Amino acid sequence: TPTFRIALIAGDGIGKEVMPEGLRVVQAAAARFGFELDCRAFDWASADYYAAHGQMMPDDWKEQLKGVDALYFGAVGWPATVPDHVSLWGSLLKFRREFDQYINLRPVRLFEGVPCPLAGRKPGDIDYLVVRENTEGEYTSLGGVMYEGTEREIVIQESVFSRHGADRVLRFAYETARARRRKHLTVATKSNGIAISMPWWDRRADAVGRDYPEVTADKQHIDILSARFVLQPTRFDVVVASNLFGDILSDLGPATTGTIGLAPSANLNPERRFPSLFEPVHGSAPDIYGQNIANPIAMIWSGALMLDFLTQGQGAGRAAHDAILGAIESVLRDGPRTRDLGGSATTTEVGIAIAERV
Amino acid sequence: TPTFRIALIAGDGIGKEVMPEGLRVVQAAAARFGFELDCRAFDWASADYYAAHGQMMPDDWKEQLKGVDALYFGAVGWPATVPDHVSLWGSLLKFRREFDQYINLRPVRLFEGVPCPLAGRKPGDIDYLVVRENTEGEYTSLGGVMYEGTEREIVIQESVFSRHGADRVLRFAYETARARRRKHLTVATKSNGIAISMPWWDRRADAVGRDYPEVTADKQHIDILSARFVLQPTRFDVVVASNLFGDILSDLGPATTGTIGLAPSANLNPERRFPSLFEPVHGSAPDIYGQNIANPIAMIWSGALMLDFLTQGQGAGRAAHDAILGAIESVLRDGPRTRDLGGSATTTEVGIAIAERV
Ligand SMILES: CC(C)[C@H](C(=O)O)[C@@H](O)C(=O)O
Ligand SMILES: CC(C)[C@H](C(=O)O)[C@@H](O)C(=O)O
Repeated sequence: TPTFRIALIAGDGIGKEVMPEGLRVVQAAAARFGFELDCRAFDWASADYYAAHGQMMPDDWKEQLKGVDALYFGAVGWPATVPDHVSLWGSLLKFRREFDQYINLRPVRLFEGVPCPLAGRKPGDIDYLVVRENTEGEYTSLGGVMYEGTEREIVIQESVFSRHGADRVLRFAYETARARRRKHLTVATKSNGIAISMPWWDRRADAVGRDYPEVTADKQHIDILSARFVLQPTRFDVVVASNLFGDILSDLGPATTGTIGLAPSANLNPERRFPSLFEPVHGSAPDIYGQNIANPIAMIWSGALMLDFLTQGQGAGRAAHDAILGAIESVLRDGPRTRDLGGSATTTEVGIAIAERV
Repeated sequence: TPTFRIALIAGDGIGKEVMPEGLRVVQAAAARFGFELDCRAFDWASADYYAAHGQMMPDDWKEQLKGVDALYFGAVGWPATVPDHVSLWGSLLKFRREFDQYINLRPVRLFEGVPCPLAGRKPGDIDYLVVRENTEGEYTSLGGVMYEGTEREIVIQESVFSRHGADRVLRFAYETARARRRKHLTVATKSNGIAISMPWWDRRADAVGRDYPEVTADKQHIDILSARFVLQPTRFDVVVASNLFGDILSDLGPATTGTIGLAPSANLNPERRFPSLFEPVHGSAPDIYGQNIANPIAMIWSGALMLDFLTQGQGAGRAAHDAILGAIESVLRDGPRTRDLGGSATTTEVGIAIAERV
């Protein structure tokens, strides 16, 4: 049997509550579809670890992850004890960069049984994929403060884009639109305001697009694009965006489908030179942690994306992915439901229900 | 009678169609409330002017605007003949900077008679004010391209924040929340990803907030904040944001109220050392230009904000503002309506209907 090695990193808050349910479901799928997941849990990349060691991860974290095929990741962040930029840059954002997970895939889909906050929309109306650049762009620690602590304080923050980085995510998005979706691509931009990087990004989109005449592409400024996620969600198929714009769109999109508690993500190194990372879009949610009421579906769906990616080309993973998605659809339709969806089921109950259906 | 000097700059596309209706209404209000608007129209800051002169505005544009109290502005941008970053940086963004219009006020409100894209929301549920920094931050032409034209191309884009610039917009927002609104402030941030400027922005928000103990403030990352504009719009009162984040939120917010065709904005130099500028949030909309079907209400509401600002402290402007808003409410409820709101009235008919009610 094909075996995949998975690192389990639950992180903080509800990450610790949804992880067991995600694991339950992917294990059930592995058993049914004939492959093995060799899982090992790590307690670092968490505020607890930080409290004990003054850093988010051990120095030899890469060593410890040697040979791992994928990271199955809960959520990180506990602002009460670690500032967010410290916890994130010391773990999640480090994985994305050092493992060159340059694609962040975030499907957005409206399900039956989930009340849609947009009036009159039904399942099928909202079904698109955000492809987010995940390693460069607006997320940097470059720049600094001048005249610090005085009235004249000035702050420079640098964004960094490379042709290497832009072209590969644009190409992935065009390719996905062509081969796996409805052949339409929306390119998020803001070239009318951000006057160096974004006009350049537009030109890269045009250049890469020349290889994909079958894909219709259009550029939209991030402000009006956000508005259209609300007003005209049916027009989207694949949406490609820089790191920051992708971050915004992939919270906003799921919000229009009722809750970000469902939204999964895949942080991919498509060439498999490094392990990829699969995590819910939601964070650690300190406000609801400890009650076992968090919705585990985003974690479970992320697990489905993981199985799909791991076994690409083999077929079994795609089947496992589809089986999990089918189980999620069925539970969303018929229950049990967690509190965010108007039910009263626990995290565990929802996890068990989905695992049983797989 | 108090007299105010207004520069009319219609710009491009539907800017030229909504301007006459805005003017009709503000003139009606001036006549009724006993003050005079001394208006003069300028044909520059438009693609036509650019076509004839190779630049968006004449060299002596400041000279020509000498003594003007406010700019009443339509929309600029005509990508078919002028790249957006050229047209915008050569006009609108130049006004905002050179006239130090550091506050961009963008009220968001759901009206009776306007179908809300959010399920189950009624007038009163969405009523907040976006206060956007308008002169610095992410909108710059600083940075550049290295290894240009090669595979190794690298682009740096710099954002620039100053304590001067951040503190004054934060203070304005706190002050507005305290004195004119419901004493709640949301500070948009992204300090977990954008690691230099945004943690610093958070600290400035805390520092300024110390002077406003009556205002409850909370910081929200732009991704989840965008999601909450859809999921929990009732929780917002005043929202303060950087230039880019304010841009996004002030298109998204109006979208949740049914259309960005209604959203007005005021670009203020609160100290009145320079003229302020009043303009709809929507752009020049090349796709519907020339049919006289554009909704003029954003232009008209922007005119109301202009009268309010011009006569602040005198009372008459506030009354004129309220009369215009009342007329807008009544027309939205009873018609006539333009096509974007399901009607078939022309731009002109809606303008006349509102002017009559003032
Ligand atoms: C046209 C564009 C440069 C402008 C902006 O981004 O500021 C517009 O979107 C706005 O919101 O006024
Ligand atoms: C936690 C944060 C740094 C992260 C991001 O902005 O990338 C998160 O919002 C996400 O979308 O994965």
